[in-house]
Amino acid sequence: MPFSKFKPLDEKSLIEYIKSVPSLSSKLGSNLDDVTIKEVGDGNLNFVYIVLGPAGSLVIKQALPYIRCIGESWPMTRERAYFEALALREHGQFSPEHVPEVYHFDRTMSLIGMRYLEPPHIILRKGLIAGIEYPFLAEHMSEYMAKTLYFTSLLYRTTMDHKHAVAKFCGNVELCRHTAQVVFSDPYKVSEYNHWTSPYLDGDAEAVREDNILKIEVAELKSKFCERAQALVHGDLHTGSIMVTHESTQVIDPEFAFYGPMGFDIGALLGNLILAFFAQDGHADQVNDRKTYKEWILRTIEEVWNLFHKKFIALWDEHKDGSGEAYLPAIYNNPEVQQLVQKKFMEDLFHDTLGFGAAKMIRRIVGVVHVEDFESITDARKRADCEHRALEVAKMLLKERRNFKAITGVVSAIKKL
Amino acid sequence: MPFSKFKPLDEKSLIEYIKSVPSLSSKLGSNLDDVTIKEVGDGNLNFVYIVLGPAGSLVIKQALPYIRCIGESWPMTRERAYFEALALREHGQFSPEHVPEVYHFDRTMSLIGMRYLEPPHIILRKGLIAGIEYPFLAEHMSEYMAKTLYFTSLLYRTTMDHKHAVAKFCGNVELCRHTAQVVFSDPYKVSEYNHWTSPYLDGDAEAVREDNILKIEVAELKSKFCERAQALVHGDLHTGSIMVTHESTQVIDPEFAFYGPMGFDIGALLGNLILAFFAQDGHADQVNDRKTYKEWILRTIEEVWNLFHKKFIALWDEHKDGSGEAYLPAIYNNPEVQQLVQKKFMEDLFHDTLGFGAAKMIRRIVGVVHVEDFESITDARKRADCEHRALEVAKMLLKERRNFKAITGVVSAIKKL
Repeated sequence: MPFSKFKPLDEKSLIEYIKSVPSLSSKLGSNLDDVTIKEVGDGNLNFVYIVLGPAGSLVIKQALPYIRCIGESWPMTRERAYFEALALREHGQFSPEHVPEVYHFDRTMSLIGMRYLEPPHIILRKGLIAGIEYPFLAEHMSEYMAKTLYFTSLLYRTTMDHKHAVAKFCGNVELCRHTAQVVFSDPYKVSEYNHWTSPYLDGDAEAVREDNILKIEVAELKSKFCERAQALVHGDLHTGSIMVTHESTQVIDPEFAFYGPMGFDIGALLGNLILAFFAQDGHADQVNDRKTYKEWILRTIEEVWNLFHKKFIALWDEHKDGSGEAYLPAIYNNPEVQQLVQKKFMEDLFHDTLGFGAAKMIRRIVGVVHVEDFESITDARKRADCEHRALEVAKMLLKERRNFKAITGVVSAIKKL
Repeated sequence: MPFSKFKPLDEKSLIEYIKSVPSLSSKLGSNLDDVTIKEVGDGNLNFVYIVLGPAGSLVIKQALPYIRCIGESWPMTRERAYFEALALREHGQFSPEHVPEVYHFDRTMSLIGMRYLEPPHIILRKGLIAGIEYPFLAEHMSEYMAKTLYFTSLLYRTTMDHKHAVAKFCGNVELCRHTAQVVFSDPYKVSEYNHWTSPYLDGDAEAVREDNILKIEVAELKSKFCERAQALVHGDLHTGSIMVTHESTQVIDPEFAFYGPMGFDIGALLGNLILAFFAQDGHADQVNDRKTYKEWILRTIEEVWNLFHKKFIALWDEHKDGSGEAYLPAIYNNPEVQQLVQKKFMEDLFHDTLGFGAAKMIRRIVGVVHVEDFESITDARKRADCEHRALEVAKMLLKERRNFKAITGVVSAIKKL
């Protein structure tokens, strides 16, 4: 390693760094003097450099010892880069088509060298705001989630392997704590960082803070988030953590990864798709009323869950005689009981998914960090209207999630509003 | 430390060992030639030496690299002594009146030096078989459980402290795996180590193996056991892990300790008290029909839960403005919502308790290791009759636990059988 202690790199020092690391320099070609470097990070969490060489490209991501939210700087361990690299490699092993390859990791420098997701890859959230349909999105994301969640759970793993992995990721506690705070706490109390489209949503924000049923439900979800080590979750699987083209879907930025409830990932994706749906009316104009696109989003929501369900069960069936210790073959391998346990497991997971998804929606409307889907609607009254309807759906899903048996019911409820 | 690598001690080497460790020798008095040593371990898991000196006493417990069950030897890491010492110290810090003091721990030797629980302390299970009433048992055990479980949970702890502690105890995975196997798996499949009072219970054992509803419920409990790091549980809190006199209650042997669901400990105690209840008819004779004693056991079962409930809530109320991160004061400190979340929390915990308690009962009747309560009933037909009734109650509790709102309902159900 070229540096014996942490040092934030700039364009100049980065090229020296790359030259000294064969696993990076070899990706770029023989003449490193032709390399171009561009910093593209938003400066909130990390430096992100795109490095283009004569024979190839890569991305360098370096974590800084803080994260910046709405102008405030919160200290945040650089060790998150270590967990990001671990998670990329772990998830990449199970779903290589949807996770960028890691070429190099340097713990001292909190630096990851990885595949550059070349144009026309864009952040899914921006595609959703632009009204672009991604025909393989549901297929790909259901595949990614089914594989990463199934293979890192006790359905597939031995108790030994599982506890060992859980212990390792307990080290990512600072980021878990941050998530717990912004998702399960901040929206339900007065907090200096909370904001919303004022004055229109003042009453909505206050209603969230005074809704005892909501607080009880969110407490249960927070406990699950903090206590239940079900699988290695991405931990921040919103539509800003996914890069897409028409044919490609790539999940990035798993720095919040830890062993937590599966529904936290699935819920993050579905919740953010629902937010995208409700934002569409704010993006509609005379050229495009977004009606067809809204239909596509709802179809995608349905397909994400239904395909996830199908693929997850298929993996379970395929490996039911394997080394996973949750459901031992000697007990559960008869068709009747197998079907019963799978039905119960998927129902519980569905309810978790709706609960976590709803919590993630609420925090994006009255909590600290909002989403571009809504923020890019310049007319505040229009934005507030979209947000209000999303918030109503989220509150209903959080409180009544146990009454939903299938995703069609959820989509109907969304349509009704 | 007198030894640089593990060596099983005998009476002779033990005295040399003690002489070289001031924290041990100082407990015994100045003249160590007057020390007497007696090995009292049952040889199944550990050597246990009682060491009596002129001015004091102590116990030395040394773990062996295996455990022995029904004659078979299963390899089992000596590192369990490390977790036992950790748990004794951790729990002892919160409930010093009910946990023996640790004087010394030697990781290399897997050796704990601790307080000798002098006569008339006996194992609670033996007291229950003998029909002895312990008037402070419910008071003491509810106190021990409320304190050890509350103070090691996120109700009291910060997320940082909690995850750090969880990670540490993940190392005790071998013993967790053993528990998961014998409690949640073995009874539900054909296993060479399973046994029961044959031929009387042949049908009962088969019925357990073929009961799909039971298998679904036990799968849910197993997941909770393996995944949910709610508090530092003792992990083996049956009536054989408690030593008692009329006035004293001491919890020993937490080598199975890990961060798991609180209900696993409370259920272990209640389940074993229910087993003790059903064993009484097998111990009744013309001198003592055990009727009064059975009433005492049932009262104790009620009091254990009710007092635990009261003490746990009292701790919660007392520390509700503290550093615990599960229920932040800014969100939950109004009387109405506080009461609502506590009610929900305790209801969920009650259902967990009944489920785990029932699973622990079942495994003692048709699983690998049985309990002396039943084993000491020499008449097989009589024993089978007691066991059958206990098994019926356990199956009912496991399946219908969510319908119980209070412990009185459970006691009524026990009485009815």
